[in-house]
Formats: sequence, C-alpha cells, structure tokens
Amino acid sequence: MSNTEAVLALLDQNLPAAQARLMDWLRIPSISAQPAHAADCRRAAEWICAELAGMGFTAQLRETAGHPVVVAHHPGPSGATGPHLLFYGHYDVQPPDPLDLWTSPPFEPTLVEGPNGPRVVARGAVDDKGQVVMWLEALRAWHATTGSIPVRCTILVEGEEEIGSPSLDPFLAANAAELKADVAVISDTGMWDINTPALSTRLRGLVYTQINLTCANRDLHSGMYGGLALNPLNLLTRILGGLHDDNGVVQIPGFYEGIVDPSPAQKAEWTALGFNEAQFLGEIGLTRGIGEGNRSALERLWSRPTADLNGVWGGYTGDGSKTVIASQAHAKLSFRLVPGQDPAKVVEGLNAYLTARTPEDAKFEVEVFGASPGIEIPADSPFVQQARAALSEEYGRPAVLIGCGGSIPVVESMRRLLGLDSLLMGFGLTDDQVHSPNEKFDLRCFHQGMRSHARLLGKLAG
Amino acid sequence: MSNTEAVLALLDQNLPAAQARLMDWLRIPSISAQPAHAADCRRAAEWICAELAGMGFTAQLRETAGHPVVVAHHPGPSGATGPHLLFYGHYDVQPPDPLDLWTSPPFEPTLVEGPNGPRVVARGAVDDKGQVVMWLEALRAWHATTGSIPVRCTILVEGEEEIGSPSLDPFLAANAAELKADVAVISDTGMWDINTPALSTRLRGLVYTQINLTCANRDLHSGMYGGLALNPLNLLTRILGGLHDDNGVVQIPGFYEGIVDPSPAQKAEWTALGFNEAQFLGEIGLTRGIGEGNRSALERLWSRPTADLNGVWGGYTGDGSKTVIASQAHAKLSFRLVPGQDPAKVVEGLNAYLTARTPEDAKFEVEVFGASPGIEIPADSPFVQQARAALSEEYGRPAVLIGCGGSIPVVESMRRLLGLDSLLMGFGLTDDQVHSPNEKFDLRCFHQGMRSHARLLGKLAG
Repeated sequence: MSNTEAVLALLDQNLPAAQARLMDWLRIPSISAQPAHAADCRRAAEWICAELAGMGFTAQLRETAGHPVVVAHHPGPSGATGPHLLFYGHYDVQPPDPLDLWTSPPFEPTLVEGPNGPRVVARGAVDDKGQVVMWLEALRAWHATTGSIPVRCTILVEGEEEIGSPSLDPFLAANAAELKADVAVISDTGMWDINTPALSTRLRGLVYTQINLTCANRDLHSGMYGGLALNPLNLLTRILGGLHDDNGVVQIPGFYEGIVDPSPAQKAEWTALGFNEAQFLGEIGLTRGIGEGNRSALERLWSRPTADLNGVWGGYTGDGSKTVIASQAHAKLSFRLVPGQDPAKVVEGLNAYLTARTPEDAKFEVEVFGASPGIEIPADSPFVQQARAALSEEYGRPAVLIGCGGSIPVVESMRRLLGLDSLLMGFGLTDDQVHSPNEKFDLRCFHQGMRSHARLLGKLAG
Repeated sequence: MSNTEAVLALLDQNLPAAQARLMDWLRIPSISAQPAHAADCRRAAEWICAELAGMGFTAQLRETAGHPVVVAHHPGPSGATGPHLLFYGHYDVQPPDPLDLWTSPPFEPTLVEGPNGPRVVARGAVDDKGQVVMWLEALRAWHATTGSIPVRCTILVEGEEEIGSPSLDPFLAANAAELKADVAVISDTGMWDINTPALSTRLRGLVYTQINLTCANRDLHSGMYGGLALNPLNLLTRILGGLHDDNGVVQIPGFYEGIVDPSPAQKAEWTALGFNEAQFLGEIGLTRGIGEGNRSALERLWSRPTADLNGVWGGYTGDGSKTVIASQAHAKLSFRLVPGQDPAKVVEGLNAYLTARTPEDAKFEVEVFGASPGIEIPADSPFVQQARAALSEEYGRPAVLIGCGGSIPVVESMRRLLGLDSLLMGFGLTDDQVHSPNEKFDLRCFHQGMRSHARLLGKLAG
C-alpha cells in the first residue's frame, strides 16, 4: 500500500471525527463584520492554530489592525525536495441574517439529508471553514500516516475575508519573505457539479470607477433654464449610453488591447461543459444573454471584459416631482478585465472616452476605487497538471479547467505581493447558499475534497 | 381732469400710506409651508379681507382643506358695461431660511437705498404681497375718487401658492359659477427691466414623468453575471442618451406635432429685446446654450419644448464600490411644452419611444405626475391690447410681450376650470431675490405698478 493509499484509508476511517471537528469550528460565530464577535474571531483563529500545532506546525496568531492572521510553518520531511506550498483560507464568516429564514440555528451545525446524502447546514459550512478543514484533515492524515507533512508547508488563515481583507495586503507585504513559497493552494471556489471536479484557472480583474460630471454652478429651475442650460443628467446618459455599440462591443479606446484569448483547447473544454444558459438566466428572470453575440455564454462570462454601470445618481430622486436641472450627475462604472488587459490603460481609455464626449461647459472627474488585472493560471503549469491529475483520479473523470467571472482579491494579492500563482481547487456547489440563510456543505464534497487534497500532497511529494 | 388722472394723482399723494399698508401686511409671517404659521396665514387673509371690505367689496374668508381663500366681489358702478375682472394673488410667502443671510429680519420690512432708489426688503415684498397691494391701491384710489370700483370685480387671494396650491383647483371647481369673469389679472411675474414693462403672454406647460425600468428579478453580482445579464442602468442610459439627436432635436415620436410657432412679429419683438445670452449663462457658470442651434436663445426658452432629466437613480450610490448589477433603474423625465402640443400625446410618444428601445427582458413603467399644456394669451385680445396700452402710457415706451419658460399653474387652472385667460402684468425685476434671503421690491416698481393697474382699470371701464 502506497503512502497515499494509506492516507486515503485513514481519511475514510476518520470521517466521523473530521466531521465532528468541523462542527466544533462551525459553532464559533466568527463574524468578522460585527465588533461584538471579535472575541469569537480570535477563538476561531486559536482553534485552527491549535489544530496545526498538534500536527507539528509552528503555528502563531499574528496581530493585524483587525482580526488576527494565523501563520504556521512545517518544514516537511527531512531532505524534502518537493515544492513549498502555501495553503490559504479564512476563518471568518458572513453575518447569518436574516435569522428567521434558517431552518436550524446558524451556529448549531446540523446534519440534514439532501439529494446527495447528508449535508452540514451552518454559517461557514462551505465558506470557508468546511473547505479549510478538508486540507487540514488531509495534512492530519499524512502526518498520522508518515509522521510528517509530505512537503514543506506554510499556512495562512485570515479572519477578514468577508469584509474585504483590509489587513491582508499590508500583512503580505510586511511578511513577504516569511511567506515565500512555490504555489498557493486555495479551497474557496466550486466544482462544476457534484460529479465533476474543477480548477478555476481564469479570474476576471476589476477596474472600479466613479464618474462625477458637473455643468452649471448650481441647481437650476427647469422652466427658467430648460432648453438652454446644459443638463448633466442628459449629458451623462448620452455619454454612458454610448459605452457599447449595437453588438455589445465596448467603445472605450484601446479597451480590447492585449487580451489573451483562451486557447482553442480551453474553449473546446468549456463548450463540452454543456452550460445551460437558459437555465442560468431563467433563475434570475431573464431569457437571453447580452453581449458579443459571436461568443458563447461561458466565453462572455469568463474570457471577455465588461463595462457595467453599478450605480447612477443625480438630481431629484424622491417622491413625486421637482422641476430641477441638477448641477451634477454621478455614475459608478466598473470593468471586469480579462488576462492581457492593463488596468491603467483601461482607466486611461475611459478618460479619453469621456474627454471626447464632454463639451466645454461640463467638467468630469474620474475616481478609481480599484484596478486589478485579470488572472490566468497557465494550464500547463506542473501544479495545475498535478492538481488536475489528483482530482481526476479521485472522481474517475477528468477535472475541468473553468473560469470565474468575478475576482478573488487574495489571488491577485498573492501574485502581486508574493509572486505566487494559486491553485483554486474548491469543492462548493452552486446550491450551497453561500452568504445566504441555510448555507450548507454536502458531506460527499467534504469527503472527496479532503481525499483530493491528500492525493495532491502525495503527488507533489513526488 | 379725467377720472384716471385724478386717480393717478391720488396714488402719488398717498404713496407713503400705501407703503405703510404694505409694510403692515409684510409683518405677518404667513409662511404656508410651516404649520406653526397657520394662524399667521389666517391673519394675512383677514388683513386683505378687511382692506377689501373697506372699499365696498363683499369680502369673505372661505375655508379649504388648507389655508383659507379670500373671495371678494364688487358689482362696479351701477349700469357697468365694462368687462368683469378677476384679480388673483396670494398672501402666503416662502420660508425665510437661511436667516443668517438676511441683512434685516425677514418680517421686519426695511427700506434700503438701491441703485434705483429705495426698496422694501422683506419676505413677500414682491412675491406676492407687494404685487397684490399694487392692484389693491389702484382699486382703493378709484373707489376714493369715484365712490365705486370702475368695473365689476372679483378678487381671489389664496394662501397656498408657495406649497403648490393644493386647495386651489378644488376651490375653483366648486365655485366656478361664482368666480365667473371675463379675464383674470395676475401680478406675480416680472418686467423685462426696470424701464421696460412687460406682459407674459406665453407660458410653457409641463409633463412630468417617472420611468421605472426592471431587468433581472434581483440584484446580481457583477462578476458572476457581468457580460451576460442585462443591466438596467446600461439600458437606461442607452435609451435616455438617445432622447436628443446631435442637433438637440427631441426624438420622441410626434413630439413637435401641432406646435404653434410665435408669429414673425412676436419673434421680431423678442429679437429686439437684445437678450444677453452670454450674461444669462455666465451667471450660472456656462458659456453656451444647448438646443436647436437655428433658434435664438429666447425662442428656445419661450417657444420650444424640452426633454430634461430631473433625476436618475439606481444601483449602488454610496461611498466606494459595490460590484452590483441592479435589478431596477429609475429616471424623472419632464417635458416643457409649448402651445399646440398635446400633453397626452407626449406621454403616448414617450411610451412608444420606450417600447421601441426596451428589449424583451426588460419591463418599463411610466408614472405621470402632471400634464399641462403650454399656454398662449392671444396678443390681439382686447384685454392684452388695453393692458399694453396702459403700460406703455405709464412707462412712455412700448410694453413688450414676453414668454416664460416655466409654468404658472394658476393660469392653467383658471383656463381649464373657469375658461378664463389671464393678463400676466407683473412688476418684479430679475434681482428681486424671490424665494431667497433679502427678497426686495423696488418702490419705483411698486409705484409705477399701481399706477399701471389704475390706468388699466380706467381703460377697461371705457
């Protein structure tokens, strides 16, 4: 029996104990957004710190301006030649409100029978405590079986992911040398479906801006001035109404410059997923996708950039009528970026677009609240290959490389501040109710997730 | 000496007493918007009621759902053959805030020397107590001189003009028979300048709408859905950004149908006014007028319709960023209408415009908060001719017929509910600070205004 086989057997045997440990952790209401739960956040950090110390890690709580970060190190077996892994996770959870929609108390984890067998219902079940416990149990089983961790490991578990990770970048920057590794492993994403494991290898980036447009030096009476005075709301809609042409192509100069299209093989893989666009849109009350008609729905979501207004406001917005021509108009406009696009160039293009369309009597200002690039983890990286192999062996079918239309800021931070690519190997399902009442994690996912992590560790140990 | 000459001489002689009476009335803080001043509103109504009773009117306070209306009647001289006039005014005033910007207390009327001689500074000085007192003094002088009022008169002084006249339409409708007359006389507008008297013979109407646009059945994550899900803010700006073409022409179907252009003579009169567009726009921080380039500025303000967004909102409008694709977007869109346009057709055209531009996955709703037509008082009506003659004689130069870009709801109400045209003969100046701190009325305007009203009464008596 190979080490990996022994580890897998131990994981199967200890599944009830692993569940019990997960439930212990889930009972701690580590809600990072609520100051009243600061002590619970610290308890949740201490809990995993103790678990790691128990399997030979040097583990510490490290203070930040907010909730503490857990950092732990294990040198691996003596003479380890495999890569140095950095496992990332977060111990904080979203607030459970609205409480009355929960079928069981959010911090009293409950086993419920579902279509795929039992599931744990609790806040944090899958996001992210359940997914952290998967690799924790994989490490534990390796440690129990071989007396060590099979590769050199650094652990980073933060407590502010649900509030935007305000302390993470400063912490990474200040501890970059200590956190150096060869690749990061993150379990905070999903599978394609319960039978199809997935690695997320493309993430879109984000440029988020606010546009402030000013015309007259004060609000005007629409009777006295209407028809002669420039109206910033009319102008704003005119400018922003031209962001896309009739085919959904964004009109910002240079917007598509540098975009790296997915490979034909990658596109073929996405096509093979048989994405049900009608169902995806039907769930939100829509019937047809917008955007570039010559691109498939998944291509548009995972490999094409967007220009979406997230907010617009100006003038009178109360009940009834007020005959005012406002002095100012505002918009929040964000762009999802794909690999190859330069966020700075997009901001530059936006400024050029606005300049060309703003008459002399109007002034615009662009505030930039964030600018991060799209990310692609190369499909041919050895880490991706080994993770894919581990998943495929566990599930008996090929793991798919999928994209993610959103951004995962920690992935961008680790690339920027630590020079690390991330393996996004997650085991969530689309019906997990993340951030909603009755968040759950299927035990089958939990079990196969820890087995997958154990397999990956075995492969990386070589 | 003709009756009119005797009346004018008496007005000159009694000017100090007339000023003193105006100041008495101005001392009553009849702020209709503030419930604490309800008793003051009633006092202000009683004040003018008593003045009218003193010159032979049967005058009454008439209750409404809000502040009382003053109605008074005088049969005119026995065997009167002249027209039956209805004088309209309002005794209520705007709140005086911000108080710290007043150079004297708003309800302690103060004489201040200005470039055109003394002026009364007080809330209500010109809007509208000062202008009401002008015709009141003209009536008083006629009564004192001839023992009667020279024509049959009805008086209507309301106390809710500054809060949108909520009780006026019901009152007019309920008392239409009693309020029947041949023409209304309203002094609540302005002169062209202190040397040039004016009658406002064109008013724009108003259609005020709110557009509610709905796409998905809930707010969406802009990463997970961006590029595939219809964004109502993108759609709203696209739809409303096309409201005008590059020449400022409104694109609503049928929008310009039926418009009655001012006569060439009227246009020539407007041109002769030498309107200083650069100064008008410069005061509000703009340098050039928008709109139809082949029309003069005054034409655009007084005789062309508009489509102005008064408010737009939707999505996230707080600080910083939220990556949301909203479910709904909203706009307040209003149209200033000119004579000949049918408000109902404009609403119909808007619906057609929206229908043509709203894709299947979006739903729009149009709420209509008001729809009143533009109004023109025919320049060749005998009343306009006589008022113009009265003004021209008083000022020694022709009175001009001007337009007003705004709406005066009472004019529309009287036309609709009483079948009455209005003579808008006002004596305000553009620097009167109406609705602002240090509202004032130049005594020269006050004096020549009452003389003009006296002359008009003489002419109408025949």
